[in-house]
Amino acid sequence: MDMHLSRIRVVLVNTSHPGNIGAVARAMKNMGLSRLVLVAPNDYPSAEATARASGADDVLATARVVETLEEAIADCALVVGASARTRTIPWPVLEPRACAARMVETAVRQEVALVMGRERIGLTNTELERCQYHVHIPANPGYSSLNLAAATQVLVYELRMASLQRAGKTEPDWHSDHPPVTAAELDGLYEHLEQTLIELDFLDPDNPRQLMRRLRRLYNRVGLDQMELNILRGILTAAQKAASKYRKRR
Amino acid sequence: MDMHLSRIRVVLVNTSHPGNIGAVARAMKNMGLSRLVLVAPNDYPSAEATARASGADDVLATARVVETLEEAIADCALVVGASARTRTIPWPVLEPRACAARMVETAVRQEVALVMGRERIGLTNTELERCQYHVHIPANPGYSSLNLAAATQVLVYELRMASLQRAGKTEPDWHSDHPPVTAAELDGLYEHLEQTLIELDFLDPDNPRQLMRRLRRLYNRVGLDQMELNILRGILTAAQKAASKYRKRR
Repeated sequence: MDMHLSRIRVVLVNTSHPGNIGAVARAMKNMGLSRLVLVAPNDYPSAEATARASGADDVLATARVVETLEEAIADCALVVGASARTRTIPWPVLEPRACAARMVETAVRQEVALVMGRERIGLTNTELERCQYHVHIPANPGYSSLNLAAATQVLVYELRMASLQRAGKTEPDWHSDHPPVTAAELDGLYEHLEQTLIELDFLDPDNPRQLMRRLRRLYNRVGLDQMELNILRGILTAAQKAASKYRKRR
Repeated sequence: MDMHLSRIRVVLVNTSHPGNIGAVARAMKNMGLSRLVLVAPNDYPSAEATARASGADDVLATARVVETLEEAIADCALVVGASARTRTIPWPVLEPRACAARMVETAVRQEVALVMGRERIGLTNTELERCQYHVHIPANPGYSSLNLAAATQVLVYELRMASLQRAGKTEPDWHSDHPPVTAAELDGLYEHLEQTLIELDFLDPDNPRQLMRRLRRLYNRVGLDQMELNILRGILTAAQKAASKYRKRR
């Protein structure tokens, strides 16, 4: 049972306090999630983490520890980052309930990640740009900073509720005729896109402004499938060919 | 604002660990609740409670300490008790979401209490019988014991969501910082895209296959904004320039 929850991992980035890692493990197990990934934790393994995990030490025991966020999410078709603040560029932001429904829907077939940032400063802009969606808990505007474990508790609770709700539901969402791309494949697309825009003299590497950020936001949220990725990369290669031949001759 | 949340109190019965009282105060304030009642707390006031409350020490400062549950709920029209277990006497049990809607509805005019039990054993049968409803978080049956603060966090989160929903203040969907494009503008983009792909020798007008259909499906579903449209058309123009200069010279 709960096969879809088993495809949802919780990724904690640079957690400072091991007690929070333990509390997150407990919250996860309470809600039926089991896959924890720790990106460069500050102090781990730790007796305090184990103590706070209470009976959820199995979640800690099987937690993966990696060096970078990229490693943690490379095989994921959907990556959601928790965000407390409003950013300069609005990103697709969902409330926990709508977000959980989307995550559970995707997890029926694909890998999904919920990414939680550091205790004080959350996720960096660069990390947030790796996410298709940001999830924001609509807290009291006068006092909106939830503790890391408390925020995770709310989000995994909504994942469990979405999963329970889905169990009584038959109609799936729209599915493409091709499998969705992974985060690593999206990264490859952005590198290719950036390189091509430079070669086309459209992007000035010395003054990139918000261009790549806006393009990431666009292609992150559309949910590309493999065929679409192939088409876009084919177009980029054709544009590069035109640009390089033109350059050679001038 | 949030007048109905101001009529909902959280009642903690016989709490053992002062840290939990602080964490509950923080969870309450995060979600816009402010009225805390402590029934015969084990160790309070306490520096640990204040530390865990973080910026929510005002909730602690105005907390009422009473001797009995009766005192805590005497003036309430609706009393809901948190229950982890199935009891011998069947009682009306609600899930957090439905329960929160009912509590917020009542709080428009009447006083409402959410009663949370002791860390290990919860509420006694006698205490549960003082409640009109029991609220049960549908946790993992294999590991269902939430920490007191975590359970309270989930329940006050649902109270906030119910309150926002009632006020019509839940976020609809994501909105960009720029207005969305019109259907006519999208058509213009597709014409420009098709023309460019022909000039790049990527699209063969005599054998177009599914290419434009797939690209339309992609950009139709993403919900472009004006700025994104301008960027895409700018890229197409740059690619056309490269293609035409190359062609002129060959």
